[in-house]
Amino acid sequence: MPQPPIRIAVAGARGRMGRQMIEAVETDRRLTLAACFHRSEVAGHGLVSRDEALAAADVVIDFTTPAASAALAQACAARGGPALVIGSTGFDAAELAAIAAASKAIAIVRAGSYSLGLNMLVGLVEQAASALGPDICDIEISEAHHRHKVDAPSGTALMLGEAAARGRRVELDAVARRGRDGVTGPRPQGEIGFAAMRGGGIVGEHSVSFCAEGEIVTLAHAAQDRSMFARGAIAAALWVAGRTPGEYDMRDVLGFDPRR
Amino acid sequence: MPQPPIRIAVAGARGRMGRQMIEAVETDRRLTLAACFHRSEVAGHGLVSRDEALAAADVVIDFTTPAASAALAQACAARGGPALVIGSTGFDAAELAAIAAASKAIAIVRAGSYSLGLNMLVGLVEQAASALGPDICDIEISEAHHRHKVDAPSGTALMLGEAAARGRRVELDAVARRGRDGVTGPRPQGEIGFAAMRGGGIVGEHSVSFCAEGEIVTLAHAAQDRSMFARGAIAAALWVAGRTPGEYDMRDVLGFDPRR
Amino acid sequence: MPQPPIRIAVAGARGRMGRQMIEAVETDRRLTLAACFHRSEVAGHGLVSRDEALAAADVVIDFTTPAASAALAQACAARGGPALVIGSTGFDAAELAAIAAASKAIAIVRAGSYSLGLNMLVGLVEQAASALGPDICDIEISEAHHRHKVDAPSGTALMLGEAAARGRRVELDAVARRGRDGVTGPRPQGEIGFAAMRGGGIVGEHSVSFCAEGEIVTLAHAAQDRSMFARGAIAAALWVAGRTPGEYDMRDVLGFDPRR
Amino acid sequence: MPQPPIRIAVAGARGRMGRQMIEAVETDRRLTLAACFHRSEVAGHGLVSRDEALAAADVVIDFTTPAASAALAQACAARGGPALVIGSTGFDAAELAAIAAASKAIAIVRAGSYSLGLNMLVGLVEQAASALGPDICDIEISEAHHRHKVDAPSGTALMLGEAAARGRRVELDAVARRGRDGVTGPRPQGEIGFAAMRGGGIVGEHSVSFCAEGEIVTLAHAAQDRSMFARGAIAAALWVAGRTPGEYDMRDVLGFDPRR
Repeated sequence: MPQPPIRIAVAGARGRMGRQMIEAVETDRRLTLAACFHRSEVAGHGLVSRDEALAAADVVIDFTTPAASAALAQACAARGGPALVIGSTGFDAAELAAIAAASKAIAIVRAGSYSLGLNMLVGLVEQAASALGPDICDIEISEAHHRHKVDAPSGTALMLGEAAARGRRVELDAVARRGRDGVTGPRPQGEIGFAAMRGGGIVGEHSVSFCAEGEIVTLAHAAQDRSMFARGAIAAALWVAGRTPGEYDMRDVLGFDPRR
Repeated sequence: MPQPPIRIAVAGARGRMGRQMIEAVETDRRLTLAACFHRSEVAGHGLVSRDEALAAADVVIDFTTPAASAALAQACAARGGPALVIGSTGFDAAELAAIAAASKAIAIVRAGSYSLGLNMLVGLVEQAASALGPDICDIEISEAHHRHKVDAPSGTALMLGEAAARGRRVELDAVARRGRDGVTGPRPQGEIGFAAMRGGGIVGEHSVSFCAEGEIVTLAHAAQDRSMFARGAIAAALWVAGRTPGEYDMRDVLGFDPRR
Repeated sequence: MPQPPIRIAVAGARGRMGRQMIEAVETDRRLTLAACFHRSEVAGHGLVSRDEALAAADVVIDFTTPAASAALAQACAARGGPALVIGSTGFDAAELAAIAAASKAIAIVRAGSYSLGLNMLVGLVEQAASALGPDICDIEISEAHHRHKVDAPSGTALMLGEAAARGRRVELDAVARRGRDGVTGPRPQGEIGFAAMRGGGIVGEHSVSFCAEGEIVTLAHAAQDRSMFARGAIAAALWVAGRTPGEYDMRDVLGFDPRR
Repeated sequence: MPQPPIRIAVAGARGRMGRQMIEAVETDRRLTLAACFHRSEVAGHGLVSRDEALAAADVVIDFTTPAASAALAQACAARGGPALVIGSTGFDAAELAAIAAASKAIAIVRAGSYSLGLNMLVGLVEQAASALGPDICDIEISEAHHRHKVDAPSGTALMLGEAAARGRRVELDAVARRGRDGVTGPRPQGEIGFAAMRGGGIVGEHSVSFCAEGEIVTLAHAAQDRSMFARGAIAAALWVAGRTPGEYDMRDVLGFDPRR
């Protein structure tokens, strides 16, 4: 007997990410689009009020703002549901505390990135860095992005570097080597190197290489378009529906985190 | 206070791998070469008898034959040590049983390959395949070897395929797709594809790609020379010295296996 | 003194590729969109008649059908212009003859693919294959495409194989090795190997490897989206405007063909 | 009727590269090792005098010192042969003039690197850079080497950068961007970027990427061991035997240089 589809409400339904989520929900048979809302906009044009949306849904997917997400978490917790998938970023301490408090009553997934692949990569990099110590392997991180990107290394490259440093039980700042140029001397043991490439329309490529004397392991991710974020949010919604209250991240959704 | 070096005996000291191990032990300050032996060859030319070698060592490294390794395991167990790193392959059931019995008394590491990188890759592939299901990702395995290799896919590619199938809880034979050519039709969900490249002097390259709709995760290994096997055996020797009796493999040495 | 923009007419303006061309022309300051037409549709909705379009343009860009393109070439030739960029494919002998005849009077670029990168790659592969003979290098071609592709190897992979075979002065059919699987024996000298990967949403990746005993040269192309075809057609239009009559292809536009 | 093997003399026969050349000549059926010499060492131990060696050979292969190579070129020219393959590097102006003068009488191949693949790559990169202008493509050069390398970018990476700059008709120094780090701003059009990776025992990998808006062409080289240099010198010896006097480089040997 097939399961009934999970009922999704989309917050921020007029935003760029909200519109992508609506499209993604509508094309996935495991889900049904129960309601859309956008701030305090009243009903009509396919929108309902927030309270109506919460009443109709098993899970709310919310890519809005930190303040809106924190308030939404409190509202869901007060009602005893629905569960929540939060994609907003840049929370302050008070907002994080509100979300943590709400997670006593409802299940919340919150992630800095909803890319399944990048979250997977972070987990694998940490493990590999832990198992292959600095006496065995040199860690090097390369990334490539389009010509419009204004900083280097990318935030994702640094996130991967932090995963590697965590695996090695060191601080990234103490071992990071960025932008090699000129007479660098031999590579110090334990260094984590970064290299950046910029050109054309590259959406985003990252690779972490573990270079031993006679062999190399490379763990890499290539983004082809931004649809991956909507897909990851949907995977999170499917996973969180009916889940025990608590605050989760994408590593829980992917189920490979050895820490739990 | 520095630890005293671990005392290593090398079995099969006249063989190709034995000679490599001797060189590798001699250049590693964490180890000291305590004894070398080769079958029943008597003392002289740097060799001692097997019994003398066992008495002098904390760990024996043994790349010989299945029969010799099984007998060596029994001899070590009867004495209550030393620990054992076995690199022979092709054991029959009786030999495996003898090794298992010996592992009640001593710690034994036995692995099909001592490449740290490949063992790492197998573990990561299994996890990734488990987390990224067939509804999300297509798994494809590519390998490249020198022009003299006579079969395809490589044994290592199949080992990686089995790790992926294990992660997906399917039988590899039921989902493997080898050597695509001609009108293949759309890719069936759940398939694990293999592609082989042959040319020049390529030592061995393997990659496992997890291809989702908008992103790809690639986990890869490149061998540069055969010295990696000696390095892996040394890592195993360092790990197994003084360890509780039991039979271990390289995933234990690498410490990333979530099953234990 | 800046040059006046080149006046472009777009044929098949209602088709998918026609619409992409209109957008590409409108966003390029070196060009101005002089006219759009679509079969015999009459003026209005931004369209003019074919004759009006030809009178207003320096170059017509035409991604339509073989029959329409052949007729258009004849019409342009009869008027003594404009020049023509043809992206239709699948011409029969009579249509090709009509285009060849028209190219006595006007300049025509016609290409099977307008990707600048792929056309570049074909030229480089032919040269490399010519310089690095079968006694030195083994040639292997790999390609990866999305899960919906129904055949292997891709047409582009075969086109690259033909370039390699041309460089080697052999017939591709005589040396192609597709879909290695099982006991293949050692790689015969002179073979050109093909391997195909299928998964996720990969737009199209191709690589040609020249594998010598101690080194490998790899020439590769990755497509990120289909916009590259419109960009190549615009490069062709810029190149062909005011050019001497003749039939040209993208290798002429790229200017690297040693044969001319 | 098979051709008689070409008679090779090896200069600097006691040096590292000389010994490699002797081994490479002895295992190639198209060649015969006619004589070995080393400075003024007299006959015996497989060595003959330089004059005896020159009398016995069709081609001398010479990886020695700039001064010795210049003197050898003059000696060969004075006798009207044999032809010469020079692998020494670091010539001063007077030595270069002596070699140029000698090349009026004999055929001389002289190259900074005898890697067939790298010489091929340099030629291809120049062409691609010439055809794909800065308005279309961003050029990025990546290289990876072992942990002992003390400078970045590698000399070969800079050589590839110079080939790209030559193709673009700019000075590399004016457009090179090395070691991106921090807030770099959007990538300026025309820039040629360099990125360096260091780790493990990587022999040497280089790639040049031409990144357009929707597609990327990558031209890459991977060195597996140093035997490639001996193989390139042998290809040069086979090519130069019986050749018209003149000074040639590896691009002539490879036969793909459009400038001649």
